[in-house]
Amino acid sequence: MGTETSDDAGVYRLTDEIALVLTADFITPPVDDPYVFGQVAAANALSDVYAMGGRPVTALNLAGFPSDQLPLEMLAQIMAGALDKVHEAGAVLAGGHTTEDEEPKFGLSVTGVVHPQKIWRNVGAQPGDRLILTKPLGSGVLFNANRKGWVSEAAMQACLRIITVLNRKAAETLAGFSVHACTDVTGFGLSGHAFGMAKGSGVTLAMDLEALPVLDEALAMYQRGVTTGVNASNRELVQDHLRFERELPVWRQEIVFDPQTSGGLLAAVPAAEAEAALAALHDAGVTHARIVGEALAHDGACLVYR
Amino acid sequence: MGTETSDDAGVYRLTDEIALVLTADFITPPVDDPYVFGQVAAANALSDVYAMGGRPVTALNLAGFPSDQLPLEMLAQIMAGALDKVHEAGAVLAGGHTTEDEEPKFGLSVTGVVHPQKIWRNVGAQPGDRLILTKPLGSGVLFNANRKGWVSEAAMQACLRIITVLNRKAAETLAGFSVHACTDVTGFGLSGHAFGMAKGSGVTLAMDLEALPVLDEALAMYQRGVTTGVNASNRELVQDHLRFERELPVWRQEIVFDPQTSGGLLAAVPAAEAEAALAALHDAGVTHARIVGEALAHDGACLVYR
Repeated sequence: MGTETSDDAGVYRLTDEIALVLTADFITPPVDDPYVFGQVAAANALSDVYAMGGRPVTALNLAGFPSDQLPLEMLAQIMAGALDKVHEAGAVLAGGHTTEDEEPKFGLSVTGVVHPQKIWRNVGAQPGDRLILTKPLGSGVLFNANRKGWVSEAAMQACLRIITVLNRKAAETLAGFSVHACTDVTGFGLSGHAFGMAKGSGVTLAMDLEALPVLDEALAMYQRGVTTGVNASNRELVQDHLRFERELPVWRQEIVFDPQTSGGLLAAVPAAEAEAALAALHDAGVTHARIVGEALAHDGACLVYR
Repeated sequence: MGTETSDDAGVYRLTDEIALVLTADFITPPVDDPYVFGQVAAANALSDVYAMGGRPVTALNLAGFPSDQLPLEMLAQIMAGALDKVHEAGAVLAGGHTTEDEEPKFGLSVTGVVHPQKIWRNVGAQPGDRLILTKPLGSGVLFNANRKGWVSEAAMQACLRIITVLNRKAAETLAGFSVHACTDVTGFGLSGHAFGMAKGSGVTLAMDLEALPVLDEALAMYQRGVTTGVNASNRELVQDHLRFERELPVWRQEIVFDPQTSGGLLAAVPAAEAEAALAALHDAGVTHARIVGEALAHDGACLVYR
């Protein structure tokens, strides 16, 4: 979102000390369980504030629901899941709006605060920076494969655990380091969001495919031929600016185009701080965080996978 | 909206000087013209902030759109209408979220600010207060009748002019007086919103039917048998707490249950200030504002129409 920049949220300077961080996001259910749907939708919406270095303070429910076709108890469960995440974020639910819809939709409008001097943008990465990704990739293909019954119960549960985690601890931990640029990885996939950072920063982001954290069974699903409705457009979005430096079957490339719901943060930090930041993330329980690459002087391509 | 109170928006105290006023509202098109739809939807959403005495600072577009069935130019027109109203409010558009939908839906999530000591609630009306309503009633029935082709072009244009007006001038003018309680009149009709004020304030609100400002041709449409999909439920909501003191045909009662889109403010002000407040409203261009009744000690009914 964001109309004038490709940042994850809008920012408004209220005083010299306080800027508001504004975001609204709503999604259709990636899972059947309404409580989990509410958690995922809320974590996904709150993430835009964390990606800007902000602290969510209030949230409004945004809901669409076919009340003549589905029991209202389902909507209550969705909202209960979201409320748990709003509380976990330390924010308060300030109301919301529900409308009749053909299918359930849910999300939040979130207002956060950040010191105007401490806003993270998705631009500002400098050559030499290391890139840290805080959640594994692959939820997009797993949701689709799960509809076919191809994903093991264990892998699906692990996926849901990860996408319901708030990016709060990741953001609070990274705030102790020099974050040059930050974004969260969502519908455009790792490549789409990294492209925004690379282009805006005027650098090349080089990432190591083997270093990317990936959810269990996600690569196997791509190998089996599963994909998502947006992998092709996510690839198209960046293909003129991207270089794979290794010979790879097409299916093995797909993970970098996999759309994420409630994905992790992608942060550029100085090389000298990268290992300490990673250790701090692991200590804080962000156990899937990995150093996945580095920023280089622009070499023609915005993104390089090696 | 509002989950814990029936106030028009949520409030969050950020500092001793600044409270945030949060609201989200989106609607389906009451009119065919997409630009006007955007204006109405925006004015409607912004109104919740004005009803709390706040000043809108940021807005996020909330849009649903069937992009495979309707031209994207239509969505652009909706957003252009909304943006004009956001700018007229002195706020900035900070982004938004659009989702695929079966039918167009549009609205805003708005963040406003207000001094914590100057928040207007929809409770606090005191016996003796006068009630001021700042816009005429009847847009609900006119929209329905217009679908049958029964409303004159002039009346429909007048209706659209009024519902696209922001409640900004009304709120800014009323801020110069002692507002004991305020709300805006929207989907639950005058009676529904006045009921919330009466019940929460522990008073009876007595309103003079002849004093109520009404849009041209709205009464004629009720007389002709037109109604809306929510008049019956709006009546049911309050009927155990309401008294008509005059014999009236049922159609003549309907205007107080007519659902408003982007309706006016209903404010309770001390009797001693009421005439001055009304004159100030008229001077500010809020020409349809009327003193429509008064608050009395609770007499058994919450609402009395006389």
